[in-house]
Formats: sequence, C-alpha cells, structure tokens
Amino acid sequence: MKSTMQDTPLSIGQLVRFGTSIHSSAEVITWSESGPTTVTFGELGKRAAQLAHALRSIGIDGDQRVATFMWNNSAHMEAYMAVPAMGAVLHTLNIRLFPEQLTYIAEHAEDRVIIADASLLPLLTPLLPTMTTVRHLIIVGADPSDVQAPEGLEVLGYEELLAGQPEEFDWPELDEHDAAAMCYTSGTTGDPKGVVYSHRSIWLHSMQACMTDAMAVAQSDKVLAIVPMFHAMSWGLPYAALMVGASLIMPDKFLQPAPLSEMISTLRPTAAAAVPTIWQALYAHLGEHPIDLSSLRDVVVGGSACPPSLMRAFHEEYGVHITQAWGMTETSPLGTSGRPDAGLSPEDEFDLRCTQGRFVAGVRARLVDDAGKELPWDGTQVGELEVRGPWITGSYYRNDAPDKFDDGWLRTGDVGTIAPGGYLRLTDRSKDIIKSGGEWISSVELENHVMAHPAVREAAVIGVPDPKWDERPLVAVVVRDGVTVSAEELKEFLDGRVAHWQLPERWTFIEEVPKTSVGKYDKKRLRSTHADGRLDVIELA
Amino acid sequence: MKSTMQDTPLSIGQLVRFGTSIHSSAEVITWSESGPTTVTFGELGKRAAQLAHALRSIGIDGDQRVATFMWNNSAHMEAYMAVPAMGAVLHTLNIRLFPEQLTYIAEHAEDRVIIADASLLPLLTPLLPTMTTVRHLIIVGADPSDVQAPEGLEVLGYEELLAGQPEEFDWPELDEHDAAAMCYTSGTTGDPKGVVYSHRSIWLHSMQACMTDAMAVAQSDKVLAIVPMFHAMSWGLPYAALMVGASLIMPDKFLQPAPLSEMISTLRPTAAAAVPTIWQALYAHLGEHPIDLSSLRDVVVGGSACPPSLMRAFHEEYGVHITQAWGMTETSPLGTSGRPDAGLSPEDEFDLRCTQGRFVAGVRARLVDDAGKELPWDGTQVGELEVRGPWITGSYYRNDAPDKFDDGWLRTGDVGTIAPGGYLRLTDRSKDIIKSGGEWISSVELENHVMAHPAVREAAVIGVPDPKWDERPLVAVVVRDGVTVSAEELKEFLDGRVAHWQLPERWTFIEEVPKTSVGKYDKKRLRSTHADGRLDVIELA
Repeated sequence: MKSTMQDTPLSIGQLVRFGTSIHSSAEVITWSESGPTTVTFGELGKRAAQLAHALRSIGIDGDQRVATFMWNNSAHMEAYMAVPAMGAVLHTLNIRLFPEQLTYIAEHAEDRVIIADASLLPLLTPLLPTMTTVRHLIIVGADPSDVQAPEGLEVLGYEELLAGQPEEFDWPELDEHDAAAMCYTSGTTGDPKGVVYSHRSIWLHSMQACMTDAMAVAQSDKVLAIVPMFHAMSWGLPYAALMVGASLIMPDKFLQPAPLSEMISTLRPTAAAAVPTIWQALYAHLGEHPIDLSSLRDVVVGGSACPPSLMRAFHEEYGVHITQAWGMTETSPLGTSGRPDAGLSPEDEFDLRCTQGRFVAGVRARLVDDAGKELPWDGTQVGELEVRGPWITGSYYRNDAPDKFDDGWLRTGDVGTIAPGGYLRLTDRSKDIIKSGGEWISSVELENHVMAHPAVREAAVIGVPDPKWDERPLVAVVVRDGVTVSAEELKEFLDGRVAHWQLPERWTFIEEVPKTSVGKYDKKRLRSTHADGRLDVIELA
Repeated sequence: MKSTMQDTPLSIGQLVRFGTSIHSSAEVITWSESGPTTVTFGELGKRAAQLAHALRSIGIDGDQRVATFMWNNSAHMEAYMAVPAMGAVLHTLNIRLFPEQLTYIAEHAEDRVIIADASLLPLLTPLLPTMTTVRHLIIVGADPSDVQAPEGLEVLGYEELLAGQPEEFDWPELDEHDAAAMCYTSGTTGDPKGVVYSHRSIWLHSMQACMTDAMAVAQSDKVLAIVPMFHAMSWGLPYAALMVGASLIMPDKFLQPAPLSEMISTLRPTAAAAVPTIWQALYAHLGEHPIDLSSLRDVVVGGSACPPSLMRAFHEEYGVHITQAWGMTETSPLGTSGRPDAGLSPEDEFDLRCTQGRFVAGVRARLVDDAGKELPWDGTQVGELEVRGPWITGSYYRNDAPDKFDDGWLRTGDVGTIAPGGYLRLTDRSKDIIKSGGEWISSVELENHVMAHPAVREAAVIGVPDPKWDERPLVAVVVRDGVTVSAEELKEFLDGRVAHWQLPERWTFIEEVPKTSVGKYDKKRLRSTHADGRLDVIELA
C-alpha cells in the first residue's frame, strides 16, 4: 500500500530558494585583511542565480563537475548554492593535497570549470597544464588577464562573469539521488577516493546538523565555520545554515590563532567547528592574549579525537564546552554527537564527553573483529567500526575499493569500543594501533595521557619494530615554549595512568608533529622519518 | 551522474531499533488513577517485538490495517512502534468522531484488527457489528471474555497475546514510500478523508520536530504529549521521541485541568503540546489552584490559532513561553514554527509570536487568491494558503477530492497573509471568513479581540445572513464564572481595536462554545444552532 504523501524530492534548489527568501536577512560574514565583509542570504540568492546563469553561458548544462579551489568565504558559498541547485556537481578541491593528488582528482572527476581564489593561484596555476579536462578558470579577486593559462583554457573574472546576469534562476526539480557534490578523501594510502553526495544525503544531513542533540544549528546562531569547505563540506554547516537561516562567519585564509581570536572577540560567534589542532593552537595563543569567549554556546570538534586535557582546559579556563563528533568524508560527516544523557555527575558526564559521542538515528553501527564477527556493545571489546545509512557512502566514484565495504556497510578503518547507550570510544585508526606481544596498545590513548602533562604541547605515538614484542610504542613529543621536560619525567607521569606493560620505552623530542592536508597527525610521515633513522630516539629501561 | 551514497530507506523499523537500543533508558510515563506507571524504551522495544509476533500469529503478514482505539499511553506507543515497523499500517481511530464516521473510516480503511483501551469499550462495542472487515479485537486492560462481540470477531486480551512471544523481531527493510500509518481528517464537510503517511514522511517529519527551531525535541526532554495519538499522530511526538531518546509523559484519559496540573507539578515535563482549548481550561483552573510551571521550557500550541491574550497571560503570570505552530492532518502536521528572528524588541517579538510562525525548509508555501493568482508575501494581501513538500499529502486514500489540490499543491482551506520572512498570519478558515459588503472580516481576529476582555472566557464568531451587507458577524460569548459583562461593554471594548465597519452588532451569550472531535470551535454546529433560531441574539445599533 502506497502512502498519499507528495513525491517531492529533497533538493539543494529548494534549500537555496528557502534560505534566501524566508531567511533573507541572515548573513555570511567573510574575514579579510581590512576586516569583515557582510553579505545577506537574500543578496547571496541573487548572486547564486547570476553564477548559475554564468555557468550555463559557458556550457554547464548537465551534471558536469564545477570545481572550487577556495577558502571559506562568501563566493565559495555562492558556488555551494548555485552549482548543485542548477543540476551540476560541485567538486571541492582540497587545496592542501599534494600537487600530484590534485592533478589526479581533477582528471578523475573530469572537472570542466575551476573557480579559484586569487590568493590560491600560486598553488593552482603550475598544475593547470596537467588538468586536461578543465575548460574555464574563474578567478575571484584578481584581474584574469594577469593569469598565465595553458592553451585551451579560458580565464575569466568572477565578478565580470556575474555582472548583468539575471538575479533569479528557476532551480530545476531533480532526482534526489542525483549527484550534488563530491569530495575526495585525502588518501593516506593509495590514490584519493571520491565520495559523491546526493541532494538527498545533503538534505538529510543538514536536518541532522540542526537537530538539538547534534550541532543544534539554529536561526539565532552565528557559526564560525573554521573547518574548510573543501574538507567534508565544512561538516555540512553551509547547507545547515541555509536550512534554518543561521549566519556564518567565514575565516577565508585567516586560520592562524591571532585572526581567529580577533574574529571571536569582535564578531561574537555562538558556535564554532574545527579540528583539534586549531583549538590547540588557539589555546596556546590565548594564554598570552586572553579574550572573552562567552559568546560560544558550543564548540564542535571532530576530524580526530580531542585530547581530554584540552577539553578540560577550555571548560575550566574559558567556560567553553567542547562537543566531540565523529565522522569522515565518507559519512557526510555526522555519525555521532557527544551529548551525554542528562542527570549524570560532572565527572561521569565529562568522561562521556571524552568519547566520540553517541550515534544519531540515521546511522546504524556495528563493531567487527578481525575475523568479521560482530562484537557486543559492552564498552570493552575492541573492533573496527562499520556504519550504514542514507548519508554514508556505499562506494567510491569510479573506484571499486571492495576492501572498504562489508556487505553494504562502510568499513571505517576506525577501531574502538561501543558502550551501552551507543557511546563510541575510538582507540585508534586500524593502521595506527600498536600490536605488542599479541596485545593491542592504542596510540591515541597514550597521546592523550602524555598531552595531559603541563609541559607538553603535542604528542604523537607510533608503533616501531621491536625484536621481542613485535611492536612497541615510540612517543614523539613537542614541548611547550619556555619549559623543559625529560623522557624520564614523562614516563614517570604515565606510570599509574596506563597499564605497566604499555609504558613506552622509546621517546623522541621534535619541533612539530607532521600534519596531513586536513590537519591530522601524519603518522605515516612520522613512521617513515623514523624508518629513515632521522629521529633521535631516547631508549629508557 | 548518480551519487555514491548508500540507498538505505528511511524506516520506522530503524527508528524502533535505534530508540530502543541507544536510548533504552528513556521512558514512557503513563498517568493512571493510581499515579504514573513507567516503562523504558528498552522494555518497549521488547514488547513491540512481542506485539509484532502476536499480530503475525493472527494473520497480519502484509500491509493490512491495524487500528487503535486508544488514549495516549504506553500500549498505544507499542502499537506505534510494532505495526509500521513490521510492515503493516497503523490506523489511529479518532475516538471523538461520530459513530457513523467511525463506521465509515473502519470500513473504508478495511481495518483487520482493532487494539482498544478497556475504558473506551462503551464507545466502540456498539459499533463493532458495523465494522465488517475487523477480524480481531484486542483489549488492553480488561478481561476479553467480558466483551460481547458479534459473530466472526475474535476478542483477545493484549497481555495474554503478548505473553511468551519472542522479545526480538527482525524489523524488515521496506520501501520508504510504503504506507506506515493513516489518519482520517475529522471532516467537517463530507465524509472523513484518509491521509496515509509513509515511512519516509514520518522519518523526515521526526527530524524536523527535533530541529532546534521547530519543537527542539531532545534527549534531555520529558514531553507531555497531550495532543492525542489519534490526532495527526500526536503531532509526531512519539516518533520524534524515539529518534532522540526523549521521554514521554502520556496522560491517558486524564485530560481535565486538575490531573494535567498534577502531571505538570509532579512529573515536571520540559515541554508540552496541545490545542489552545486545553491551555485555556488549564489557565482557568490555575487561577484557583496555582502550581509551579517552571519545568516547561516550551509549550507548543497548534490545531487552531492561540489567542494572544492567553499567550501573554501564560508568559506574564507563569513565565511559560507558548510557541505556535501551524499544521493539519494533511501536513503530518508541522508546517510552520513560531520562532521569530533574534534581536527584536519584546513587543515586535511578541507580535511575531502571535503569528502562526515561519515555514520550515521542507514546506513550500504560496498564497492564492479567489482567481488562482499567486499573491506576494507582503503581510497585507489575503489569500488561501497552498503547500507542497515531502510530508504533505498529495491525495486522499481512495478519495479523489480534486478540489483539495491545485497542480500538485495542497489547498489548505486556511486563509491569511504571509509577511516578508515567511511569517504566516492566518485570519480564518476559508469557510469561516465573513464576507461583508464585498470586504472580508476575519472571524478569528474578532474572537481574539473579544477574548482579550478580562470577563470573557471564550468567544466564537460566525457569519450570519444580513439583508444589506450579505453577511455580518455574530459573536457568541462565554463569560467567566462569577463576573458579568454586557454586549454594549464588549462592543465598546472592540472600538478602536478593529476597523469601525467591522464592529459586530450581533451578540449572544452561551454556556460553552461547541467543539469538534479534535477540540476546535465547531462553527458549523454554531451556525446551525443559530439557523434553527436556538440562540438569543442581542442586536445593537
């Protein structure tokens, strides 16, 4: 028996139509050298219509890929609106990928147009000759005639292209399963793999982001979207903002602690979202340059586990609540949200806040052991997390990768436990876990304990070969400016905090932990630096 | 180009699986003569599985209709969970319909099973011989052998049927467009019409209900669901609660002000939802029996417009915020939510709170005049509201009703304006508006102004024939206990509040405004009482 409900598709076109009319006074505020510039959703709607007409005029009339090579700013928001709403596919190029990866993904996605920020041209122009499917480069913020382009590639100015185009566009009704946007994983192993979001998945994910127990994005919010729009769609914040009329603060290229701190103190965001490394750097900066953080009702941290010491410090020193969320490019990204049950003691609540949070209703989860057997949710048994749901990828674009899927479930590569109540506690990436004498040691747990030491700014733990135990942990430590600490002191600090057999013997002091393109610890690089004998390792008894 | 997202359907089965595992400690608290009884979501999950097995055992193996004839209570919640999740269709019979309407809808929907509360048997048993498709009657809370049933109808006890059934059920993966539940409109004109919700529409609507700017249902909530589960699915609250693990307080048959007041003071709900008449009655009761209402973060009022005087009184006297929402059985029901933009003056904010609120992203709206022309959203021009979206009905079950649809849009029968920002201000039902000398007078606006007088408890305005103006308003007034007021005084009170030509000449004082089965003013009955000459009408100059 069929329902009598209307069969209207979920579409970015409706999201754009809605956000720019009902919430026309909401704003996108972009930071710049000369301070913030503001544009309303109403104005954005007109400019998105102009962009769509302009793209039609240069031949985008189907599902061609329109790429962006941009910071978080209002022009990028216009591309987020216009490209999927007109029926084309938005491909957000990750500016932090290595050159050969960028070439690979532009070729693999067959990008036809790239819209690029002028400030990023030095990274992009050397690659243009290798991106053979690109016909048009549209420059935001610079004179297109200054750009040297290879033959067959036309360079256009963004504002010149929009000028004079009609300010309305009749956004078509599309199949909600059609592609709306795509994003490639940064690919620490093998080639980057493309995830293609649908109008449906983006719509559902936006609703999830606005649910009170998830990111609670609301009309009264001003969301500081630090997480890049080229990284898992800025965790869905641009579309969530359109769905409820929340204003957005976009930092453009100003991702350093000083300008972020200025944005927070002058623009007074109510919420913010970024990876832990951003908050760590900001915290270090705030120690010398304190500001008022009281406008922040919530800070969402994801991408990798947030050190509990950082969560505690932000809460105790600045009254700011950090909420963890777990997700990945493949999961749109919202998979969990770290809001514990009400009515717990402060310590129990904090303990649960240090988990990756609880699964949301649209995401089914299971833990699987090495043999593929499903494990119970007892908070103890460790397995790989597999997930399933309408905003979770079921394949990669033109890339089979059968080892990433298990009977329709996504294998996340994340390893951990699930406690009763659905609290996910990730202990490691499956490739980072340390296998010592048949037992597993979580690199992340060791890092968190080391980082709880007041002299430590950053710590990364990798497994290194050991003749007796197969693998043992090596701790790479970044010490805070102006203080000193020895490996002996740190080992002693860990004693009693971790099981005795887990206490690391090997320590190294480094200037900085290498990071991936998306700001996570790059343990692959750390491992190869160690393998090359380029780390000074102290070995304790 | 297709997306790479998983094609997993939205389904009540997943909602049940999720809510009863991740949020197994959330509760449904049902009121009874001997106080509240509590059952956890975890226990409900087991009982819902038992119910599904029991229904299979009596032949429910496809999309047969399983009807309920029940108050809001935990057994009704079990039916909400089990029936759609197993693939059958839940038909919530509205206990307040007239007998011939109940017969009509049970026959029309071809109900196979009815689950009924013992306390409602006196209403139901006389009708059983007329419900020819029903094979099983399942009684909650009484001995089935006490029930006299017509031949061919087997009477079963709910608990006896569940006892011994397995406590797990492998909820099937269904097509999300399949029917999950159905609800008939109360049908003030013609036969009741059936709206059939899909798994998809219920899922999307539940997400909407949990969005911060809508009903903000969250894990930390205890929602007092006064609005009946047989009336537009209790506004979606049962499924929204499952989606986030909010606890529910169910009043069963205790809908009078005294027990509701006791539920609020002893169980301390954080949110509540009901039609305005419930709040009016509660307000009158509270005057003599004040209680602490401070646990209520939000009270959602819908079904008909809430008198501004009542909103102001609750806010000023009890600190309780009333939020209006507009919807109907045909819209699942959430169409708008009354949360104004931030940063307004208190008076401007209150003024916008008195509208029906703003449309939510999933609902497209337009105003259409008598000639079918679309009107601008200028807050002035009055037309009929038409809506479109994935949780809005596009037809009625086995009933064409072409006059209810306009090129794929639902004609709501509601008349009003839409202001910039999408604020809907309903002035009337299209059939209740008073056409006086070519101009329209809103019966609802007049009612609100009359009800702002301190001596008035209720006021209903209908159009009555007038030889000169075609129609003129007649005001039916219910005066508060222990006070008196004259028609002259009330007319004088209106002077200056409404345009002079709108001032009503005709007044009548009555004991109570007749109500429809769902608690709305029954103006059809008031009109016929007047037409029969059974109202004492005072006619002023």
